[in-house]
Amino acid sequence: MTTRFGRVAVLGLGLIGGSLLRAIRQTGLSVVGYDIDPQTGSAASAAGFPVTASEASAVHGADLVVLAMPLPEVKGALQSLAAHLSPDAVLTDVGTLKSPVLELVHGIIPSARFVGGHPLAGTENSGWAAADPLLFRDAPWALTLEPDTDLRAWIALAELVCDLGAKPVPATASEQDTAVAHVIGLPHVLAEALALTGLTGGELGLSLAAGSYMTGSRVARTRPDLVATWCDGNPELVRALDDVITQLQYARANLAADGSVLDLALAGHTARMNWERRRFEPVELTADATALLEHGRRGGWITAVLRDADGVRLLGMRPNP
Amino acid sequence: MTTRFGRVAVLGLGLIGGSLLRAIRQTGLSVVGYDIDPQTGSAASAAGFPVTASEASAVHGADLVVLAMPLPEVKGALQSLAAHLSPDAVLTDVGTLKSPVLELVHGIIPSARFVGGHPLAGTENSGWAAADPLLFRDAPWALTLEPDTDLRAWIALAELVCDLGAKPVPATASEQDTAVAHVIGLPHVLAEALALTGLTGGELGLSLAAGSYMTGSRVARTRPDLVATWCDGNPELVRALDDVITQLQYARANLAADGSVLDLALAGHTARMNWERRRFEPVELTADATALLEHGRRGGWITAVLRDADGVRLLGMRPNP
Repeated sequence: MTTRFGRVAVLGLGLIGGSLLRAIRQTGLSVVGYDIDPQTGSAASAAGFPVTASEASAVHGADLVVLAMPLPEVKGALQSLAAHLSPDAVLTDVGTLKSPVLELVHGIIPSARFVGGHPLAGTENSGWAAADPLLFRDAPWALTLEPDTDLRAWIALAELVCDLGAKPVPATASEQDTAVAHVIGLPHVLAEALALTGLTGGELGLSLAAGSYMTGSRVARTRPDLVATWCDGNPELVRALDDVITQLQYARANLAADGSVLDLALAGHTARMNWERRRFEPVELTADATALLEHGRRGGWITAVLRDADGVRLLGMRPNP
Repeated sequence: MTTRFGRVAVLGLGLIGGSLLRAIRQTGLSVVGYDIDPQTGSAASAAGFPVTASEASAVHGADLVVLAMPLPEVKGALQSLAAHLSPDAVLTDVGTLKSPVLELVHGIIPSARFVGGHPLAGTENSGWAAADPLLFRDAPWALTLEPDTDLRAWIALAELVCDLGAKPVPATASEQDTAVAHVIGLPHVLAEALALTGLTGGELGLSLAAGSYMTGSRVARTRPDLVATWCDGNPELVRALDDVITQLQYARANLAADGSVLDLALAGHTARMNWERRRFEPVELTADATALLEHGRRGGWITAVLRDADGVRLLGMRPNP
């Protein structure tokens, strides 16, 4: 392991934070956890993890601090830890939307070496009890890269993400939030709408609901307040909803005119199958923000960070058109 | 086995017809198959099933005839077999929409003892090669009951469906098509729209697409022409789309006004969890069309047909509120 971090503090020990605490310790690093809920802290402590009684003591001496609480709690956490964060420490988070967190960090700890992070690794379960050190295996993990991002901090974090078995994807906060509107916000809103209106067919419909309803509404099992934090405040989701509403109105008009949904079904089927059938090729990248962002825009990710006498090189994969 | 059928002809040996041929033979009945595609017929024959060279010879001597071809081929099949169907034979089908088939049968073979059927047992796969005798295990199976339906034919078919491990659900063709618009048509149209517009976020979105996009668009893997036959010509699907578009417009307006999707997420989550958590109780039913239809409207199904000196009784399950 070549990761440059010695002691990692994870603040918030739910599904993602708890899984991270377990996964990072498995890479051989020293970890410490904190949770605002004392019961969660006790559970982590009983499982053999060092847990502190305050954010301040967790952050003290940590060279990587992970904000793993829900978005509404990030502001308070930043205020609590601001005075205790080492100037050299790298700060990251694991939330779905990156622009709101970037704004909070700029406002509260403008000098922080911050790199926004978003592991795409949720399940419908939540809480410390569901934590799993293998949760991040093969998961894409957006890492934000802005003009003022410390590139060394970004690379160190990318290296740790690789060590967890995940796939660091370089993107600006704005680019990642746009993508997330389409592939996370939109699927969740559609699943909620299907779960609700799919059942307006009455009891007979309830008993005939089978595979397509079951998988189509699966993520409506997620805690509604979490879904809201993944959707609210993302202007691109408004545009994604406009797009999907237009498609549905088109299908509706065709059906009402004794036409067919075949056009939409052909286009949807093609999109889905092309996505499944993507193939990738290895690529070597320079440690340069512009090159990394271009790699991310093309659908690429990082697979390894190599350090030798000539400096740092990154290996990656990208779609093979 | 108390099923009243001696010889069953299955016309169309794709996923559903092929699975039926295998499943019905496992109940001990004599089966014969036919497929318009000679290669499919040969494959079934090579697997040890009697296969005829024409619809007419399959139907000859059969006391149950199953139309298991796609909807666009049903009309031609009815015309081919009309002159060969025994007056005592029961005729059924396995298509998603029941009203169009009912209309065709009334027009082409008005004297047929027809009971429309719809097993909710598809997968994303298709064709004889995917046929599985266990496909119908625990699957709801709508069986239509109209004012002119022969109740003895209906009960005999319900008994066979129980023997296949499935759950006969009594409904009129119109009621079943309304329910299907909400729980099959709507989920498929939404999955197609998500598959398509979910990917308009560019290559970065493709690489961040994870669980919610993957399951939300799963049924867009289905052959588009099949999806069209499940949706087209169902007026209730227009209303279901209107409902879902209204929900999406409401969520969109909230988001655009810096509000939240929480309302929709709460409602969707509640609907999904209530559906999952339904509990059922056993019930005994008289062999009466009105009672059976009321049972179906309440979300009930048949579990067994009992024949004794006093006549026929049916056992069923229904939601326990």
